Amino acid sequence: MKFSEVIQKLDVSFHSLASNCDLDPEITGLAPIDDAPPGTLSYIEGGKFAAMVNETTASALILPPDEQLQQQAIERGIAWLADAEPRLLFAKAIALFYKPFRPDVGIHPSAVIHPSVQIGRDIYVGPNVVIQAGVKLGNEVCIHPNVVIYPRAEIGDRTTLHANCTIHERSKIGANCVIHSGAVIGAEGFGFVPTKSGWFKMEQSGCAVLEDGVEIGCNSTIDRPAVGETRIAQNTKIDNLVQIGHGCQIGSNCALAAQVGLAGGVKVGNNVLLAGQVGIANQAQIGDGAIATAKSGIHNDVEPGTIVSGIPAVSHKIFLKASAIYSRLPEMYQFFRQMKRHSNEN
Amino acid sequence: MKFSEVIQKLDVSFHSLASNCDLDPEITGLAPIDDAPPGTLSYIEGGKFAAMVNETTASALILPPDEQLQQQAIERGIAWLADAEPRLLFAKAIALFYKPFRPDVGIHPSAVIHPSVQIGRDIYVGPNVVIQAGVKLGNEVCIHPNVVIYPRAEIGDRTTLHANCTIHERSKIGANCVIHSGAVIGAEGFGFVPTKSGWFKMEQSGCAVLEDGVEIGCNSTIDRPAVGETRIAQNTKIDNLVQIGHGCQIGSNCALAAQVGLAGGVKVGNNVLLAGQVGIANQAQIGDGAIATAKSGIHNDVEPGTIVSGIPAVSHKIFLKASAIYSRLPEMYQFFRQMKRHSNEN
Amino acid sequence: MKFSEVIQKLDVSFHSLASNCDLDPEITGLAPIDDAPPGTLSYIEGGKFAAMVNETTASALILPPDEQLQQQAIERGIAWLADAEPRLLFAKAIALFYKPFRPDVGIHPSAVIHPSVQIGRDIYVGPNVVIQAGVKLGNEVCIHPNVVIYPRAEIGDRTTLHANCTIHERSKIGANCVIHSGAVIGAEGFGFVPTKSGWFKMEQSGCAVLEDGVEIGCNSTIDRPAVGETRIAQNTKIDNLVQIGHGCQIGSNCALAAQVGLAGGVKVGNNVLLAGQVGIANQAQIGDGAIATAKSGIHNDVEPGTIVSGIPAVSHKIFLKASAIYSRLPEMYQFFRQMKRHSNEN
Repeated sequence: MKFSEVIQKLDVSFHSLASNCDLDPEITGLAPIDDAPPGTLSYIEGGKFAAMVNETTASALILPPDEQLQQQAIERGIAWLADAEPRLLFAKAIALFYKPFRPDVGIHPSAVIHPSVQIGRDIYVGPNVVIQAGVKLGNEVCIHPNVVIYPRAEIGDRTTLHANCTIHERSKIGANCVIHSGAVIGAEGFGFVPTKSGWFKMEQSGCAVLEDGVEIGCNSTIDRPAVGETRIAQNTKIDNLVQIGHGCQIGSNCALAAQVGLAGGVKVGNNVLLAGQVGIANQAQIGDGAIATAKSGIHNDVEPGTIVSGIPAVSHKIFLKASAIYSRLPEMYQFFRQMKRHSNEN
Repeated sequence: MKFSEVIQKLDVSFHSLASNCDLDPEITGLAPIDDAPPGTLSYIEGGKFAAMVNETTASALILPPDEQLQQQAIERGIAWLADAEPRLLFAKAIALFYKPFRPDVGIHPSAVIHPSVQIGRDIYVGPNVVIQAGVKLGNEVCIHPNVVIYPRAEIGDRTTLHANCTIHERSKIGANCVIHSGAVIGAEGFGFVPTKSGWFKMEQSGCAVLEDGVEIGCNSTIDRPAVGETRIAQNTKIDNLVQIGHGCQIGSNCALAAQVGLAGGVKVGNNVLLAGQVGIANQAQIGDGAIATAKSGIHNDVEPGTIVSGIPAVSHKIFLKASAIYSRLPEMYQFFRQMKRHSNEN
Repeated sequence: MKFSEVIQKLDVSFHSLASNCDLDPEITGLAPIDDAPPGTLSYIEGGKFAAMVNETTASALILPPDEQLQQQAIERGIAWLADAEPRLLFAKAIALFYKPFRPDVGIHPSAVIHPSVQIGRDIYVGPNVVIQAGVKLGNEVCIHPNVVIYPRAEIGDRTTLHANCTIHERSKIGANCVIHSGAVIGAEGFGFVPTKSGWFKMEQSGCAVLEDGVEIGCNSTIDRPAVGETRIAQNTKIDNLVQIGHGCQIGSNCALAAQVGLAGGVKVGNNVLLAGQVGIANQAQIGDGAIATAKSGIHNDVEPGTIVSGIPAVSHKIFLKASAIYSRLPEMYQFFRQMKRHSNEN
């Protein structure tokens, strides 16, 4: 596809062809900036990658609205198009060149589907899929090979279940969700009550509910509770190897990075960002728009709109200051000992 | 079921009907206290949930032996029953209303079972299960769809293997165990010896042993060792996404929360509690009854009955004090600099 | 096998038979030092295990070149062989007694293999395996039951895929690799761009590449990027439950312990060791030969050959000193308050 065609399809008005430059290379694909062969389109968001404009062998670049960078590109014979959000535009450009794999509609004969299952139109069910009694599948559902769905689960329209994931009994998965390989939705929460004669198992009679547009990463686990629901609201995106304990309530439009762990009954507001390996203790409440940086350990409630860090988590600002001093503790301690000795002597 | 019948079945002697209150609502199910529709039974353990007695729309409550709470319930028209362990009683109440899904006895024709497999009576084997040579299955074993069992593993009576879990060669799983979806039992430990020409793979000839009553959470991994056993003793419960390295020995009645990781050769005593995301280094020994709070990083042995926290883990008491001061480090540092400058000047 | 035969097969010249001791026990197997029945061979690397030579019931020991230990062994009637690397020699000894399970060549009739798949010679494909269009399988590939391979993936010679793992579209897996149960290779990276109307999904058009000799542990997840490759170079070994984000580049001969998490675009050099539960933030670069101790949280680049620890990670030396002082913070703080009060008064 010609660069001019890319510009047209992305509907961008600010680009090198409009800036007295007649470069119109053939774009054969997209590539990362540090490994972009000739013929590819790449992008630069600015910051430490800005210098890459002088090194890249890409034929075209998506740039921020930075005239100097644009000029540098032209000088190196690189066509450009500019946008305030280069990464978003790049995402749209990928969609011009790449169509994700999607199997053809149809039910493989090796799938084992209980006769009571309700099936929407235009669905795909791959080989060795097992769908048990009372399950409901919406329209255009796509179920990859070796998925298992326990009884009475519901899968909404256009939802994709990737290979080897497991959906447990009574789970409700909305429309346009993606459950990645190996994820387990709605299994029993970890409910054991200590007694003198050992653990008493609390049966987990509740269910897991994923609203529309939720994605769950590979090998993540979303438990169901003893009573009530574990609920993940609309358009929340969860990365790989994440644990969501029984009875958690997660708001909409959140993003939870890999290996995050939420204990039982945690309440997370809307638009919350939890970075990698964050842990949140039982029953804690995280306000709307809050951010927890990587590896934070949260034991108490977090106010809306705040950023927290550390174990136990404190305000990110304080964490930055305190952790910068951490390395100086030995020096401080030595001085403290001197002072103390001195003060004891006096 | 009438409230009076619930009381009778749970065999509780302390309740509102016995306290001059004739409320006997129909109980249709159980619910969490903050989302309990009329007709449901819920529970309050006390603490920060006590205030919920004034807000809940539950028709009946399990309460602690707290007369004031009981009086409040009555005033709001809520029947109650009381017990020193409300959560345990609630667990028993769930069992009155909920019967966990259990497939009917039988072996699905799509299961691939080696002719040498020994099979107990009244077992369930779901679709697409693969059971390899020399495996022994006890009575009433329940093997959900798409489980794979490698050669010569043993599964004890009444043990359940959930969909998509994998049991590796020579694993010994006792009676009344539950292995949740995606868990992997007895795979090769991570045994690579560094040499000048790269990693030398140490074959893992040992096996994983789970004694009776052990539960392993979804996507958890229990490795087998080079020689000897990785052993998890009776009634220990392990949550999701937990890693148990090769050669670990875990005592009985422990609880390991989600995302805990044990390196190789760790020895854990009986009745140990490891909270979420705790990590324990190679060969460390954890004494009976010890507790590690969430995210602790344990490098050294932990004495029986102690509580540890932090990275590296120290006494929980000290951790609480020290971490409370962490936020004040900037202030301390500033003062330290002043003092130091002052002391240098003198 | 006689002890003398073990010595001969391992080609060791330094042993008890050569040291005027005629002990030549029958060796029936190998065992860990603290649970070694008579008839077994075990090993001691020194350090805290050295005392075990006085307690073990093993019939033979691999020892370090330590004459005192060797003398102690003889006095207890234990044959020994010695090497500067006892663990490596023990690994070689295991290989004399243990042959890992390997299924016979053949393709199970229940496997679902697309007609376009290219198949090498002498491969094993287990029951219920699903291999989709355009996949290439090398010679002597071993694919255990219930594995799913998405379209156009490539699996090199002698590579083993364990039960229930999933290989996503276009992944390239080299020769002599091992992918353990439940691992997911080449699934979509976590690519969501924030916009005013919510998350915009960035399609992940790249692929995951594993070079020769790579091992990926159980339930680990290796994501593919939006463009370009996620690459793991030769002979790097990755343990269980590890997350490798989209676009990471990992060098050769690294070892990543369990539950390590790498965010997107991380660059790891050769011969790097990441201990358990380490986390590395987006785009960070880790130099050749660097080591991160357990639970480190790395936000910035790490110099080659250095050891880092802590959250955020600092030099291991500094971490050791600073963390030793952590417990004294309360004492320091109290003194600081006194001093401050005193200084305010003056």
